[in-house]
Amino acid sequence: MFDQILQNVQERTPLVHNITNYVTVNDCANILLAAGGSPIMADDAQEVEEIISICDALNINIGTLNSRTIPGMHLALRKARELGHPVVLDPVGAGASGLRTDTAKSLIDEGGITLLRGNVSEIKALALGTSDTHGVDAALEDAITPETLDAAVAFARDVAEKTGAIVAMTGPIDVISDAEKTYCISNGNADMGRITGTGCQLSALCAAFLAANPETPLEAAAAAVGAMGLCGEIAKARMGDQDGNSSMRNYLIDAISNLTPEELEKGIRCEVR
Amino acid sequence: MFDQILQNVQERTPLVHNITNYVTVNDCANILLAAGGSPIMADDAQEVEEIISICDALNINIGTLNSRTIPGMHLALRKARELGHPVVLDPVGAGASGLRTDTAKSLIDEGGITLLRGNVSEIKALALGTSDTHGVDAALEDAITPETLDAAVAFARDVAEKTGAIVAMTGPIDVISDAEKTYCISNGNADMGRITGTGCQLSALCAAFLAANPETPLEAAAAAVGAMGLCGEIAKARMGDQDGNSSMRNYLIDAISNLTPEELEKGIRCEVR
Amino acid sequence: MFDQILQNVQERTPLVHNITNYVTVNDCANILLAAGGSPIMADDAQEVEEIISICDALNINIGTLNSRTIPGMHLALRKARELGHPVVLDPVGAGASGLRTDTAKSLIDEGGITLLRGNVSEIKALALGTSDTHGVDAALEDAITPETLDAAVAFARDVAEKTGAIVAMTGPIDVISDAEKTYCISNGNADMGRITGTGCQLSALCAAFLAANPETPLEAAAAAVGAMGLCGEIAKARMGDQDGNSSMRNYLIDAISNLTPEELEKGIRCEVR
Repeated sequence: MFDQILQNVQERTPLVHNITNYVTVNDCANILLAAGGSPIMADDAQEVEEIISICDALNINIGTLNSRTIPGMHLALRKARELGHPVVLDPVGAGASGLRTDTAKSLIDEGGITLLRGNVSEIKALALGTSDTHGVDAALEDAITPETLDAAVAFARDVAEKTGAIVAMTGPIDVISDAEKTYCISNGNADMGRITGTGCQLSALCAAFLAANPETPLEAAAAAVGAMGLCGEIAKARMGDQDGNSSMRNYLIDAISNLTPEELEKGIRCEVR
Repeated sequence: MFDQILQNVQERTPLVHNITNYVTVNDCANILLAAGGSPIMADDAQEVEEIISICDALNINIGTLNSRTIPGMHLALRKARELGHPVVLDPVGAGASGLRTDTAKSLIDEGGITLLRGNVSEIKALALGTSDTHGVDAALEDAITPETLDAAVAFARDVAEKTGAIVAMTGPIDVISDAEKTYCISNGNADMGRITGTGCQLSALCAAFLAANPETPLEAAAAAVGAMGLCGEIAKARMGDQDGNSSMRNYLIDAISNLTPEELEKGIRCEVR
Repeated sequence: MFDQILQNVQERTPLVHNITNYVTVNDCANILLAAGGSPIMADDAQEVEEIISICDALNINIGTLNSRTIPGMHLALRKARELGHPVVLDPVGAGASGLRTDTAKSLIDEGGITLLRGNVSEIKALALGTSDTHGVDAALEDAITPETLDAAVAFARDVAEKTGAIVAMTGPIDVISDAEKTYCISNGNADMGRITGTGCQLSALCAAFLAANPETPLEAAAAAVGAMGLCGEIAKARMGDQDGNSSMRNYLIDAISNLTPEELEKGIRCEVR
């Protein structure tokens, strides 16, 4: 199944409209190209509706969020919904500031988000709010591990049900759920968190995978998450003595550009719940 | 001839003022340094006139165009024209939105653009407008290949004559024309299109080459285009089994920094029309 | 001493809030992670006070300065001062435009800058102003070399005394002074200036080092400067025949991520005055 999903991305060259932060935007563009997609970055309210209209998917990322680009996010989201395009929301830093939390929430409330992709803290900040956060912290405060997996799955399902979006909550184990079915993926390694932008890149990748696989969005998101983790493993295996963070970043994007459907199918470590 | 042009860049260290997108800006800065130039990025209306005054050339790129930076583009362009500095316009995504098409057109109408550097679709969007596009599509809709080269040369000449700017239309074959004389360059490879920013980098490079060679702007633009294509070939030849998009990008910039005038002179494949 | 300082960075994972330019922001994020710190980039006036409140240090960099982000710089600086967080100011391009010079000066006048990190020209533009510049140019117009070192030290001391900030003036020799004590560091090489962002990266690094070593800010700044220079040497030693600017950039960040406290202690070439 995952092999077909990747093959669709490579054959259909999905065009992804990104409204994203200026920290990791170049990595997002390069990973989209590496996967066989095509990126357009455009954030001005005057053009986002035209841009999303010629694209296949929208990727909204609220890193380096600023007042200037928020209206464009809403306009693009509405147009994408109208056109039936899949939309990924990456709530970078939700919980770190009211601006980020509120913007992410208002985008979710708008409707039309296909996939909500973030780490546990970000998803918690959106789903639980500040006042209730401590209530679930007992089970979820740490990264998703075998010990906390049950609670994480239950939480992801609950958020998916409440928001109507697929939830991809990433960590040592990644949990991707649409409320009815959940994929738990255990590819990847801790070194991926020591380079900037692996989360942002994954969200961009998810948008391409969703666009190329409209019939199976949950599986498409799981495939993107698995591909990223698997390529993190390939990158790490390639590291030499003098290599460090910058090489890891290069090797990861290289690996995505060399990944074949068969390798993904074989390499993904996935449990369905 | 091309060797002297590159040598001038390496010896004169042209300072290039860039008003450019946030996706590939780092690559533009690095390729300018690699070629022997020096970059300054500044886009605020409050400072662009001062910045261009201490620089040797201006590079305007409308990727991630936004309302905030458009006034700065016009101010910098006017000042550059007044000072006699060469100006490159890269109309990234012209045709994809009204904002981009209109902004690019209004910059051209302003006067003072020395070089218009884009792909065929972008140049067509500017030169022909939406309503007439289909008329030339028959001959130009595909990339510039031996079969479509005659039509592409005629079109580039026509645009150069109408705009008063040198036109560099890039693709499998690159066509650089000032209406009277046209260079057709066949260096490069398709892999260059699979990494983000090669077009943006080329435009930045052109600005440096123009600044260091004020007497021969057409040849300077052709040399920059040839240098980029040749370095794409060098980069590709260096690719190992595990290398992919990210390595290609690194090797391309590495190659620019190691390119000698002699290598450029020998390696450029160029036909004059 | 320098070993302990780096160890503190690696163990304490200082969270650094960056308000910085869009050219080198990705490099700044990656070098912070490479050193063992953690980056957050946020520039909107609506969120900077919240963001700095959860961070350990603030890094303000005025490259690609624009009107939109200046209010956020002031708000973040005031909050950081109130919280006792160390603040680094990198006055990129001060002297090149009134906007940059004035903004840097007004940030210094605000109070609360712990470290002013720039090249000689930038520090001169801030300390001496245009009208007086020529007066010190005789001794300082060139890079800091053994011949100009005495004058550079005297100048750095003077600026430190007048601003109340530690001054790190970088060049072939780096001078770090708090008015009473001065470290002169001679690590590094000219190739570091041929890649974009080494100065910006150093400023980000300084913020992490200051945050993790609140008792010894002068030594922390000297350690960061020495670490960057030493890693520039390690990167250069690793360069192969086909390597160029892009590899140098990657190797530098790789080296930071592999640097051990012992290597820093041994490798730093430092004279105290």
